Amino acid sequence: MSERQDLYPTRLKTPQDPFPRKDPIVHARNEHRWDGPLDEIALSQYERDGYLWFEGFFPYDRITPFFEELQEMQQDPEIMESERVIKDPNSGAIRSVFEMHRLSARFDHLTRDPRILGMVRQLLGSEVYIHQSRINDKFGFQGSGFQWHSDYETWHAEDGMPRMRAISASLMLTDNNEFNGPLMLIPGSHNHFVPCVGETPAQNWSQSLKAQTLGVPDKDTLAKLAARGGIKAPKGPAGSLLLFECNTLHASNENMSPWPRTNLFFVYNSLDNRLEAPFAAKEPRPEYLANRSRYSPLSMVDDFPELAGQGVARLN
Amino acid sequence: MSERQDLYPTRLKTPQDPFPRKDPIVHARNEHRWDGPLDEIALSQYERDGYLWFEGFFPYDRITPFFEELQEMQQDPEIMESERVIKDPNSGAIRSVFEMHRLSARFDHLTRDPRILGMVRQLLGSEVYIHQSRINDKFGFQGSGFQWHSDYETWHAEDGMPRMRAISASLMLTDNNEFNGPLMLIPGSHNHFVPCVGETPAQNWSQSLKAQTLGVPDKDTLAKLAARGGIKAPKGPAGSLLLFECNTLHASNENMSPWPRTNLFFVYNSLDNRLEAPFAAKEPRPEYLANRSRYSPLSMVDDFPELAGQGVARLN
Repeated sequence: MSERQDLYPTRLKTPQDPFPRKDPIVHARNEHRWDGPLDEIALSQYERDGYLWFEGFFPYDRITPFFEELQEMQQDPEIMESERVIKDPNSGAIRSVFEMHRLSARFDHLTRDPRILGMVRQLLGSEVYIHQSRINDKFGFQGSGFQWHSDYETWHAEDGMPRMRAISASLMLTDNNEFNGPLMLIPGSHNHFVPCVGETPAQNWSQSLKAQTLGVPDKDTLAKLAARGGIKAPKGPAGSLLLFECNTLHASNENMSPWPRTNLFFVYNSLDNRLEAPFAAKEPRPEYLANRSRYSPLSMVDDFPELAGQGVARLN
Repeated sequence: MSERQDLYPTRLKTPQDPFPRKDPIVHARNEHRWDGPLDEIALSQYERDGYLWFEGFFPYDRITPFFEELQEMQQDPEIMESERVIKDPNSGAIRSVFEMHRLSARFDHLTRDPRILGMVRQLLGSEVYIHQSRINDKFGFQGSGFQWHSDYETWHAEDGMPRMRAISASLMLTDNNEFNGPLMLIPGSHNHFVPCVGETPAQNWSQSLKAQTLGVPDKDTLAKLAARGGIKAPKGPAGSLLLFECNTLHASNENMSPWPRTNLFFVYNSLDNRLEAPFAAKEPRPEYLANRSRYSPLSMVDDFPELAGQGVARLN
């Protein structure tokens, strides 16, 4: 039996240098089939920075129902006791809830919003499906941060995602400001893969989702990347949208303000990039963390008919 | 024996509501004797916000020698092993070094800089002395934060400082930016004293300087104060100066950037506000944390003769 090719070896015994990514960033340029709402400037910006930020993508009153539904869910003991819910290691408050789009028709529809889906298909150059969805919650004065990491590193190592051909869409359900632990990114960091040291233990996710220690780039590499690209923390009102490439390094600090920070994440993966066996873990993660059974292409559903025809929101 | 008057009871058995401060904020207005570099606008701003921020107060090349001397100190095992040095509870790196002005003539001179001292005497309306000095260091990727607190609460409870008549001058020895854990303040919070719950244990300082848990306002009060005054985090280049009132609530987050953050603090207390026995602790803290023996008034020394006559830096 021949050894499977692994383009992005990680969870290694000895340190290895970062190397340039082996996949495109914009996967279909000038292919009419995947035309979409993003213009050349936006495509170039995404290619350069590894993310796009849309301040006020959805108007505030369109976001309120999602936030209210989320709060209802948090009253539901069945949901709250399930393994989908990750608690904060310090405070015990909710940190993440996974599979949001399967818990709620409203969230499911949102994954198929024509403007979001249009951009995602344009960038990935293919039909797409939802690899993972989650809410990350940081209550006032208690939400811990997230260490610097590339999502792709984990998805490759633990979920068997073969190529870099996925995008996270993060929708702000509360205002994100300087003080409530906004997402930080290192622009340009998506251009390199940073192999990480340390073998993946069994059921690593039960620990890593609370506080990630494995699959985290070393400090020297982070310092070099931040010296080159700087750090950015997009801030804006509830309804703002962040699209970021699966390999873009990101982190967030503790919420030391009284203002809650709730961000919704949908991870879109190309249908041509379906999961295989994990590349650096003994067994795949559970379905609620990494969908490996529902591969039907997402179709557009306009959840906001009155907004149709307004095109894409202002790009910041 | 009559009971001593305690204007600011704290470390209580049961929660008590915040109450308005019983001391002026600007202690001498229109008293010629204490005229100084601050104009009416600056005085009013300090009165309203509880702090003043001077971006680029000292030019960059004037700050470099302090930073270099500090790095030399950190190579000195005698200093590093002393109780003056507080280590980070997580990383073991240096978190604070106390009594900076007694370790170094250069730092001592800086406490007597005519422009800083002129403003401090003007605000406190009296001769002043150094109650405490320290460096707070946050190395890249490892400096923990500081919980929200009023310095005065601790100085009153544990050091016996009777009145609110002290000022911290914080000089940035590195750039302070959005990502390296800058000081955050709640403007206007100095107008109320927030009594805190919990008896002071013996030698509380050995714990509280690593991570403060006692003498910290409750979350509801913090939320109310932040809703009213917001949160501000002054940012600027090395050499910037922050003057803040002893009762202004402040905090800082973890440094998640590769960029170190080093801030120097000098605490000036009015000579008319000398320490008494602690108001809510069995014994006073050590001298290196709270000077109770050297009460001579600070005299001006111009460490930067070539800057004389330039007046006070631009007020932001």
